[in-house]
Amino acid sequence: MRAVLKKDPAPGAVLVDVPVPKPGPGEVLVKIKATSICGTDHHIYIWNEWSQNRIKPPRIMGHEFAGEVVELGSGCLKAKVGDYVSAETHVVCGLCIQCMLGEKHVCQDTRILGVDTDGVFAEYAVVPEENLWYNDPSIPPDVASIQEPLGNAVHTVMSGETRGKSFAVFGCGPIGLMAIGVAKAVGGTFVAAADINEYRLGLARDMGADLVINSMKDDPVQAIMDATKGVGADVVLEMSGAAPVYVQMLKVVRPGGRVALLGLPSKPLTVNFSDDIIMRGVALHGITGRRMWETWAMTRELLRSGKLDLEPIITHRLDLAGYAQGMDLMTSGNSGKVILYPEGLK
Amino acid sequence: MRAVLKKDPAPGAVLVDVPVPKPGPGEVLVKIKATSICGTDHHIYIWNEWSQNRIKPPRIMGHEFAGEVVELGSGCLKAKVGDYVSAETHVVCGLCIQCMLGEKHVCQDTRILGVDTDGVFAEYAVVPEENLWYNDPSIPPDVASIQEPLGNAVHTVMSGETRGKSFAVFGCGPIGLMAIGVAKAVGGTFVAAADINEYRLGLARDMGADLVINSMKDDPVQAIMDATKGVGADVVLEMSGAAPVYVQMLKVVRPGGRVALLGLPSKPLTVNFSDDIIMRGVALHGITGRRMWETWAMTRELLRSGKLDLEPIITHRLDLAGYAQGMDLMTSGNSGKVILYPEGLK
Amino acid sequence: MRAVLKKDPAPGAVLVDVPVPKPGPGEVLVKIKATSICGTDHHIYIWNEWSQNRIKPPRIMGHEFAGEVVELGSGCLKAKVGDYVSAETHVVCGLCIQCMLGEKHVCQDTRILGVDTDGVFAEYAVVPEENLWYNDPSIPPDVASIQEPLGNAVHTVMSGETRGKSFAVFGCGPIGLMAIGVAKAVGGTFVAAADINEYRLGLARDMGADLVINSMKDDPVQAIMDATKGVGADVVLEMSGAAPVYVQMLKVVRPGGRVALLGLPSKPLTVNFSDDIIMRGVALHGITGRRMWETWAMTRELLRSGKLDLEPIITHRLDLAGYAQGMDLMTSGNSGKVILYPEGLK
Amino acid sequence: MRAVLKKDPAPGAVLVDVPVPKPGPGEVLVKIKATSICGTDHHIYIWNEWSQNRIKPPRIMGHEFAGEVVELGSGCLKAKVGDYVSAETHVVCGLCIQCMLGEKHVCQDTRILGVDTDGVFAEYAVVPEENLWYNDPSIPPDVASIQEPLGNAVHTVMSGETRGKSFAVFGCGPIGLMAIGVAKAVGGTFVAAADINEYRLGLARDMGADLVINSMKDDPVQAIMDATKGVGADVVLEMSGAAPVYVQMLKVVRPGGRVALLGLPSKPLTVNFSDDIIMRGVALHGITGRRMWETWAMTRELLRSGKLDLEPIITHRLDLAGYAQGMDLMTSGNSGKVILYPEGLK
Repeated sequence: MRAVLKKDPAPGAVLVDVPVPKPGPGEVLVKIKATSICGTDHHIYIWNEWSQNRIKPPRIMGHEFAGEVVELGSGCLKAKVGDYVSAETHVVCGLCIQCMLGEKHVCQDTRILGVDTDGVFAEYAVVPEENLWYNDPSIPPDVASIQEPLGNAVHTVMSGETRGKSFAVFGCGPIGLMAIGVAKAVGGTFVAAADINEYRLGLARDMGADLVINSMKDDPVQAIMDATKGVGADVVLEMSGAAPVYVQMLKVVRPGGRVALLGLPSKPLTVNFSDDIIMRGVALHGITGRRMWETWAMTRELLRSGKLDLEPIITHRLDLAGYAQGMDLMTSGNSGKVILYPEGLK
Repeated sequence: MRAVLKKDPAPGAVLVDVPVPKPGPGEVLVKIKATSICGTDHHIYIWNEWSQNRIKPPRIMGHEFAGEVVELGSGCLKAKVGDYVSAETHVVCGLCIQCMLGEKHVCQDTRILGVDTDGVFAEYAVVPEENLWYNDPSIPPDVASIQEPLGNAVHTVMSGETRGKSFAVFGCGPIGLMAIGVAKAVGGTFVAAADINEYRLGLARDMGADLVINSMKDDPVQAIMDATKGVGADVVLEMSGAAPVYVQMLKVVRPGGRVALLGLPSKPLTVNFSDDIIMRGVALHGITGRRMWETWAMTRELLRSGKLDLEPIITHRLDLAGYAQGMDLMTSGNSGKVILYPEGLK
Repeated sequence: MRAVLKKDPAPGAVLVDVPVPKPGPGEVLVKIKATSICGTDHHIYIWNEWSQNRIKPPRIMGHEFAGEVVELGSGCLKAKVGDYVSAETHVVCGLCIQCMLGEKHVCQDTRILGVDTDGVFAEYAVVPEENLWYNDPSIPPDVASIQEPLGNAVHTVMSGETRGKSFAVFGCGPIGLMAIGVAKAVGGTFVAAADINEYRLGLARDMGADLVINSMKDDPVQAIMDATKGVGADVVLEMSGAAPVYVQMLKVVRPGGRVALLGLPSKPLTVNFSDDIIMRGVALHGITGRRMWETWAMTRELLRSGKLDLEPIITHRLDLAGYAQGMDLMTSGNSGKVILYPEGLK
Repeated sequence: MRAVLKKDPAPGAVLVDVPVPKPGPGEVLVKIKATSICGTDHHIYIWNEWSQNRIKPPRIMGHEFAGEVVELGSGCLKAKVGDYVSAETHVVCGLCIQCMLGEKHVCQDTRILGVDTDGVFAEYAVVPEENLWYNDPSIPPDVASIQEPLGNAVHTVMSGETRGKSFAVFGCGPIGLMAIGVAKAVGGTFVAAADINEYRLGLARDMGADLVINSMKDDPVQAIMDATKGVGADVVLEMSGAAPVYVQMLKVVRPGGRVALLGLPSKPLTVNFSDDIIMRGVALHGITGRRMWETWAMTRELLRSGKLDLEPIITHRLDLAGYAQGMDLMTSGNSGKVILYPEGLK
């Protein structure tokens, strides 16, 4: 089968021909219908510092997908051949206190598909049966593939109350863009979106943002305080990891409001906890992964009801062999989600 | 009447004889039975930097009390002469979005009794009727007086789930000590307490801490990780404001756990948000004041049921004239709560 | 001034000329811009059994309104002459445990405007300052007047999770109709609505119901189970008080789902608690009034953001003198909300 | 091996010698250290109406146990030989919406150990690996065995807020008795317990009830209203299924309070929904099973911390062969939990 392989500990990746893998006990083999490029895949491709410390090549890349179960390993009791599936990419232990309390997304012994095990930029991939999500048949493979990052957006938006709330979204990469649509769909009454890239701000508008702010041109603090008549935003979504945003976000969140942090700052940051967080009763929530399976159920309902439309942010569709072009698009910043088709473009 | 007055913008305070004040519209006059010294009062007394920026002498000090309503201003419809009361010390606007959402403790236009208006280190004091808390008759004035700081402890402990949870309390000043007892009373199954003062660690043990750690002698991170078998604490209560604790607290909170911040750091602090908060799904909650009136109702139930006993931490009782001695005790660190009696010691 | 008076303990009401009332301590006088007829007003008008036991004529009717503060009684510290207001109609004690816990809507000593005190079907009315809701200026008086019943709908819908949920609404009177729109606005992904009146089912469709069922023609249980592929509804809103619905609602709610009860059955009803509620882990929530002030804040956000449009259900607008015609419309069942204008129709 | 077999569709059971079963895919074989008799087992033993409709003899009885894993079926990835385990007795599908939302206790395709499959009144039993709970080593087998019914108590008590709350517990069978201790351990400040059996009321007192009421002698409504100074109980736990309690419980729950229903009434009951539930804003929650695995984690913490002591209610310990004596004790009503030891009494 064809697969995109991180072959060496260096920038880039290669398209190779490898044998179809065999599912072990508790695993299934999936034929990939569509797969999409995540920021993490891009980090591995360009071989950034995080990748150098975490990835042990050779490794088949990729973790976002939709496909069909074609073979069952021993002991599989729920999946059936022919099931139309995607997968949670956090492979958890199921035994630690986090797993027992329904907080599997922060399992203390997590492995990640396409990072710690071979991934899905391939015609076939092996996935633990426990990680399968059984897709709603009404959702096409390209959209089904991006349910995983959508889950990050849903998890971030829904880490607290959303109904009747005003939102400020900092960072309009694909997950930030998704979060704009999710916030509107789950009762948000106002969404401001800030970024420094005009292409992405255009997509933000398409996703329903009520106010878009180019932070290179306008002060997002001033713009958001004006738009909320001096009250501030009920909810801030930090989707950029950018240091200046850590100052801005604490100025625009209203007293008693919450800040959900998904973007990963590249280094420690300094915050005035007394004045900005404690005296104002602000909450900060670090967000990682997706709740299993509440978040996935929510993504399904949003998609199949039509309350959320992701079409505006699927900006590019390529054959699997176009992976390098897809990576370049992501480097440019002028893309939403890029879908790769291992079976080829129809 | 006798009153403790911050007369000049300088360290210290004086005992003066002043006229009994008159309650205005919506206010009541209270005869003070007991009043207690808060850390904030101590800050004002020693005239620290915060006080210099906030307090405009002359100002009668003090905000924690229990007493009896002796006169009503116009328009008072709820209070009656003879009511046995304490008071919420945050005087809120009642109109902003925080007030409307039941988050009055983060009202954006708060004034504070004894800080922005004359306080209760006196024989009589004027208090807004809206701020009165009607004490349970079974609670004596000394304990009733410290319901206000107890409310801070209750608010901090109960800013999330507590039942079946393990706690790490950093800082064993009066509110930290109260929080230990509260955590045990509301379902906490294990409480570790850390401080650098042996006197206070003794009180921590009296309040029910399962493990006390002198952070000058032992590493609290190691001690707490050992005690929790490597899991970490479900809940961390930061009651110290100390910079080193901001490192320790993020090492001992378990993935998916929460950190409640009450202590006020004296300067901005640097935190590794990516590794310590976001990737581990940790929540930080800034806590200020008390929820009106859920927190007060909770303090009443804890006290009148006997689930919480504050006797161990009422360490000193003085006539009002002993205020300077009380302040010196607080400077020493070798005290719990100090009660002052404007009517004299019985 | 003109006022609609329930003069005698008998069906009907009369338009009378009475002196403008004077606000007492803690009260304001409001000039009424628009008032709307509630089902309760209709009950008083036709003099049903409940009214006979509760109302003591003479009594000026009405409690839903929007207007302008024109005079302040003594001790009013928040309202100002000129404020554009509506009001919560439950006048609560502010002292009982319910009030202390932020559950004023179930205060154990509640009086109701227009029921226990003179109401707002008049050119002017006296209202406690504490009960005022300060209207958003963007909301016109007719819509502002129906915020109170809208609050019932919001409270019912939001008595639990709504996001990504399927709803079954039984009863399409004005509050049921509002609830349909609210459910969609706060993240509901599917709403089925059942009634026996085709006019109202038409309005249900206008408010966004995905499925409307005439229970006289079709079995709502079958229709809802089919529409949810056998799962049942996540949330049932009982807005009819009709005995047959108490059977249907427990058949369509999914295991683990919730039923919010707002309609008032006229007599005790028999339920199979073991099979239908306990074994299936179903929750029933009795709903009354509106949360002060969370519900009001939510209605404001829904209205001013445009997420909720009530225009379809304001079906009739009349001069105050047309009150009897309004009551007849309500008797017919072929109306949404009826607005009365004490200043006359523009 | 020895096993207690429901051999025929008639009252009684027999002790038989049968082969040790073999674990299938995803199953483990457990050597039973202790097993306890549930009310359900008693129903099957006396062959009540429910049993006649549900049980298909021959069937090995029993579902509460603690034991040791001695053999693994194929595909087991988490359990290890030697693990000290108990088990959740609801075997769920893992695929329905309830399972996906973390509400497995109301899975729509549940099978029950010892009811739908052979059970644990035996020296060995087969259990699905997914259902295993890994016991804390500090908890002895008799107590570990009754974690399952304790889970019902924990689930019932914790179906809403408990901290600072007053409780009324109706029905002092084993689960009601456990609920008394749980309520106190998770922050309940007052617990009244009502039953008609003096033996059980004595155990209620031992478990920490503040007030015990023999409903044959005293009116529980009056007693509870007096004890709460006319307020009523914040939380009512219905653990009896008795029709008269359905009247009493709605009289003693305070407005805005909640009623958790665990006892199963034998027939439909009539309730005044308007006056008792809707107008008073009361919530009723049907409770079944245990949350997987939040409830189990909570039971562990309560037990290993010593906050909950179940010794008072383990009233009898018998060799497995004494099962009939155990059943007779349960018929008498004069027992708490009865433990059976398949390995014999030590």
